[in-house]
Amino acid sequence: MNNDSTDLLLVAGEYLITSPNKRPLEDSCVVISDGTVVEYGKTRQMKAKYQKARVMERSSGLIAPGFINCHTHAPMVLFRGICDDIPLKQWLEEYIFPAEAKLNKTFIRLATMLACAEMIRGGTTTFVDMYFFEREMANVVDEVGMRAYLGEGIFDFPSPAFENADKVLEETVGLIEEYKDNDRINFTVDPHTPYTCSSNILEKAASFAKEHSLPLVIHLAETKWEFDETISSHSTTPVKYLDELGLLGPNLVAVHCVWLEDDDIELLAQKGVSVVHCPESNLKLGSGISPVAKLLEAGINVALGTDGAASNNNLDMLGEMDFAAKLPKGVALDPAVVSAEKVLDMATAAGGRAMGNKAIGMLEPGCKADLIVIDLDRPHLRPCYNPVSQLVYAASNRDVTDVLVDGRFLMTNSELVTIDEPGLIEAIKSFQNQPFWKE
Amino acid sequence: MNNDSTDLLLVAGEYLITSPNKRPLEDSCVVISDGTVVEYGKTRQMKAKYQKARVMERSSGLIAPGFINCHTHAPMVLFRGICDDIPLKQWLEEYIFPAEAKLNKTFIRLATMLACAEMIRGGTTTFVDMYFFEREMANVVDEVGMRAYLGEGIFDFPSPAFENADKVLEETVGLIEEYKDNDRINFTVDPHTPYTCSSNILEKAASFAKEHSLPLVIHLAETKWEFDETISSHSTTPVKYLDELGLLGPNLVAVHCVWLEDDDIELLAQKGVSVVHCPESNLKLGSGISPVAKLLEAGINVALGTDGAASNNNLDMLGEMDFAAKLPKGVALDPAVVSAEKVLDMATAAGGRAMGNKAIGMLEPGCKADLIVIDLDRPHLRPCYNPVSQLVYAASNRDVTDVLVDGRFLMTNSELVTIDEPGLIEAIKSFQNQPFWKE
Repeated sequence: MNNDSTDLLLVAGEYLITSPNKRPLEDSCVVISDGTVVEYGKTRQMKAKYQKARVMERSSGLIAPGFINCHTHAPMVLFRGICDDIPLKQWLEEYIFPAEAKLNKTFIRLATMLACAEMIRGGTTTFVDMYFFEREMANVVDEVGMRAYLGEGIFDFPSPAFENADKVLEETVGLIEEYKDNDRINFTVDPHTPYTCSSNILEKAASFAKEHSLPLVIHLAETKWEFDETISSHSTTPVKYLDELGLLGPNLVAVHCVWLEDDDIELLAQKGVSVVHCPESNLKLGSGISPVAKLLEAGINVALGTDGAASNNNLDMLGEMDFAAKLPKGVALDPAVVSAEKVLDMATAAGGRAMGNKAIGMLEPGCKADLIVIDLDRPHLRPCYNPVSQLVYAASNRDVTDVLVDGRFLMTNSELVTIDEPGLIEAIKSFQNQPFWKE
Repeated sequence: MNNDSTDLLLVAGEYLITSPNKRPLEDSCVVISDGTVVEYGKTRQMKAKYQKARVMERSSGLIAPGFINCHTHAPMVLFRGICDDIPLKQWLEEYIFPAEAKLNKTFIRLATMLACAEMIRGGTTTFVDMYFFEREMANVVDEVGMRAYLGEGIFDFPSPAFENADKVLEETVGLIEEYKDNDRINFTVDPHTPYTCSSNILEKAASFAKEHSLPLVIHLAETKWEFDETISSHSTTPVKYLDELGLLGPNLVAVHCVWLEDDDIELLAQKGVSVVHCPESNLKLGSGISPVAKLLEAGINVALGTDGAASNNNLDMLGEMDFAAKLPKGVALDPAVVSAEKVLDMATAAGGRAMGNKAIGMLEPGCKADLIVIDLDRPHLRPCYNPVSQLVYAASNRDVTDVLVDGRFLMTNSELVTIDEPGLIEAIKSFQNQPFWKE
């Protein structure tokens, strides 16, 4: 190995978590070159081995893989707190849909920038998005330096951005070609739900995803209404309905999965489907509680997502982990179900597996250098006996001090590097005084 | 009014929440004198009226009443993450009890200082504590400048601090006398549970509380084990058992109340008992989910607490509000139950009502000047359409920039004023390397 090409030796003053399933390391550092983790090891040995590397120390730092927010609608940050605590139908019909109908590319760019600022500050390095105008989002995400999987929503009816499913797929072909040399910007195929897409469109989306080797992302079994409606329309459960259409497979990413029969769980496991758990949104919208302990027990790959900020109301993966770890314990009356380590896996490596990308969500040699530093020198993070417990149960979004994606600093010492944060905040304040849906 | 005696005019650049039940005000400020809220109003008018007052502006600030953490065991911060995700009995017997048995006054002082630092940073101005060595705690809390209600745990058996209940009550008499001129330091009477105290001790504690006009605080109906055990030993539910002993009344503060029959709820309402809801701890320990929507519907005063950091694992009231607001929606499958405004009440004014103190938890004229400033110029708090929603659903502990208790700044511009934070962190790090229970 030519040690001269080594860029950076990042030293974890306290702990280095290389993978959610491995014991955190002490006195250790990670060696980064060309956006990739070269190796990790004891700091003294690494310093001797890579003598020409730039060394950065984070004396009270915990280094961990960056979070993968596996389900969001990032631009919905503009609708954060637009209205809360009212019935779902009224919330959608009176607030969200009318506002979304007036979305345009300018607002999508502003909103995506805001969402990226929030996500970087909270330690998210990759996000998986389903929304509209994903071309504008790709552009902003690329500029900001995050990693993303972007999916343009597909419906039976026109979306705010496209007339029909064919136009969406056409756009997706173009985007894939445009970004083929940029491994930070990736695409997915996103039929919205089994009830807003006809069987014909669902099948078309699935076959397009297979042809282009893309993840197929769908909201599935989110509400009791959807469950009952599917039984009534198709005489079977949402999961089995998708199985009948041939959609269940290792590239399917089923978001929510709150309303499941036991044999739905078996089916998801057999077919290798990944599930994205969004506990805060499921609670806040009154959708229910996903049987996540059972999903994990069945061997299903379960990733974690915040959902959009309108139903959360933030994009904070540390907060989401806290809910994901505690909720199943209270439901099962058993403090031993769904450990902190398992939840950290949901927030990191499981998201990579859901996207078919094993180079993210871990810091093993050859993985992408997508990582975060948490400063433990804060009253609510001391003492620290177990850094994984501290991340999942005690930390909050502003404890993240540094964020790297592809080995590049997007935040350092709590300052955003690639975003003009004061300018962004001012732009959002102007927007807030005159929201576009009131124009 | 002699306007010369007016000390401080604190200007909320964005919003002023004077009470959880009132509409947030814009262009407003609060006028503080001698530790008390004199009045609030439009900033321009107040500036004209109080021309000699010191004016402090918080341009992107939201001012709100400080949080009242209505149940904690503050020194348990030393056991934060000592062990997680194991069955309750093993957690208590193998980790918590052996560590607590070795507690002493020095560690209580250190632990209380750490807990206060964390609570101030998170916007808590008052806390209600049940633990051991409350005399040492009182001393630290007084020094730090917070407001507290402190209760020395009473058991059938010796505690780490006292031989028996009589000694605890004797100590309490002494403390009341000692602090009678200090309205920040208050005391409660704390029989631990209905199953760790004999009926004799419960009755003695209740009559002592009545005699001294103190709140009577008890853990009640926390676990299914307790519920079943009470049925088996006393042929009735935990709530009805306490009623038979004459403990239910307006000074009773019943913590947890997870396992209740419908007529238990009626009984708590009829007798004017306050309940303290600790959703994160109840979930994490696998105790269950309190029927908090039903309690509120019955008209019960429900306050909010974090419980100790060993079962949470922080003392963050903003995080606790998020759980308290979302959880009942998911359980009831109804996004309209337990509104953000109601949860803000639980975290502020309801705690004051539980303690029989209507001068805290609100910023009405004559109330204590216990208040916080939240900086809204952060990506996860923009846009801001509704400041109450932002507090409950989006904010996190480190968004608090200023904290005042009794009109005195305990934190300003995110710097602690009354605590040497770097020195404290160093002391905790030394402790962490050699925890006392391993000596």
